[in-house]
Amino acid sequence: MAAPSLLDQLIEALRCLPGVGPRSAQRMALHLLERDRPGGERLSRVVHEAMARIGHCSVCRTLTEHETCAVCSDTARRRDLVCVVEAPADVLAVEQATGFRGQYHVLLGHLSPLDGIGPEELGLDRLEARLDGGEIREVILATGTTAEGEVTAHYISEMARSRGIRSTRIAHGVPLGGELEYVDRGTLSHAFEGRREY
Amino acid sequence: MAAPSLLDQLIEALRCLPGVGPRSAQRMALHLLERDRPGGERLSRVVHEAMARIGHCSVCRTLTEHETCAVCSDTARRRDLVCVVEAPADVLAVEQATGFRGQYHVLLGHLSPLDGIGPEELGLDRLEARLDGGEIREVILATGTTAEGEVTAHYISEMARSRGIRSTRIAHGVPLGGELEYVDRGTLSHAFEGRREY
Repeated sequence: MAAPSLLDQLIEALRCLPGVGPRSAQRMALHLLERDRPGGERLSRVVHEAMARIGHCSVCRTLTEHETCAVCSDTARRRDLVCVVEAPADVLAVEQATGFRGQYHVLLGHLSPLDGIGPEELGLDRLEARLDGGEIREVILATGTTAEGEVTAHYISEMARSRGIRSTRIAHGVPLGGELEYVDRGTLSHAFEGRREY
Repeated sequence: MAAPSLLDQLIEALRCLPGVGPRSAQRMALHLLERDRPGGERLSRVVHEAMARIGHCSVCRTLTEHETCAVCSDTARRRDLVCVVEAPADVLAVEQATGFRGQYHVLLGHLSPLDGIGPEELGLDRLEARLDGGEIREVILATGTTAEGEVTAHYISEMARSRGIRSTRIAHGVPLGGELEYVDRGTLSHAFEGRREY
């Protein structure tokens, strides 16, 4: 065979998307070509612009095409609460699911000395500066429940404590609608340890 | 809220892809931004080029960026067999699954008078010209098993018959590995009628 056809290149390029295997990539390519060329043109344009212009917020490090993100520049939000998360996806999840109206700090990872990820890589110097600013009164730790996430939460809680700032950890336990028999052991054991007065 | 952020625009643009809902679009957008910007750049470039340059083969009407597609311009393929299918996806399916080494004619639809889709819209004038060319000795009818697909197959078989060209219909029946109890009635009844000497 000669050079791959443009259709084959399109199918291959679509496979960079997560969860897209050869068959769905083919279906997507044919759909764009046969039924939605304007959608394809728009996709191409927006992806290009997003890759070129979206960077990280200079305050909280989430993804934004501006110097500071919409949350950080929203003057109507509380400035005394900061929620620490590992990834921009976590910001979206908290925004979509909760009524949280405070600030964020996005670590873009978690402490992992073996991989060379220390406090600086997580922007903790910037978080320290924010804590030193005097406005923040509570740090909500919403890092993952992995060992690294826990270590990171502990490290940040110490940073807060040394400044006399309260830190809280979001609750972990049996998910709503979750049936006990299907919940993994770690979660169930955690839910027992974290039980509260009824 | 002001104008949607570039991230929101990216999520929205990804939803033009079939099978991509709000949550997978978000996952795809964050994946591209956080883990695969080169892949995103390439996707944008290839989608743009594909939308702009891919048209239909002047001979068989499948998708191609050239005047004639790779199959039609492959001189090593048999010129006495033409397989009639409804869509470019069907060409890919036949190429990937079978050893078929003949030509194609892609209808880009099926006869549907109520929708204003007649022989001309399906390029049947072009297929007639090919049949008149004298090289083709068998027309393989691989249109769908819908009523419209059957009517289209019948129409084309008449076109072939009037020229003394043989036409065949691909076999329909119980799929390989299919269990009788799970096969739909139409298929099973078809499989009985189409039974062959053992």
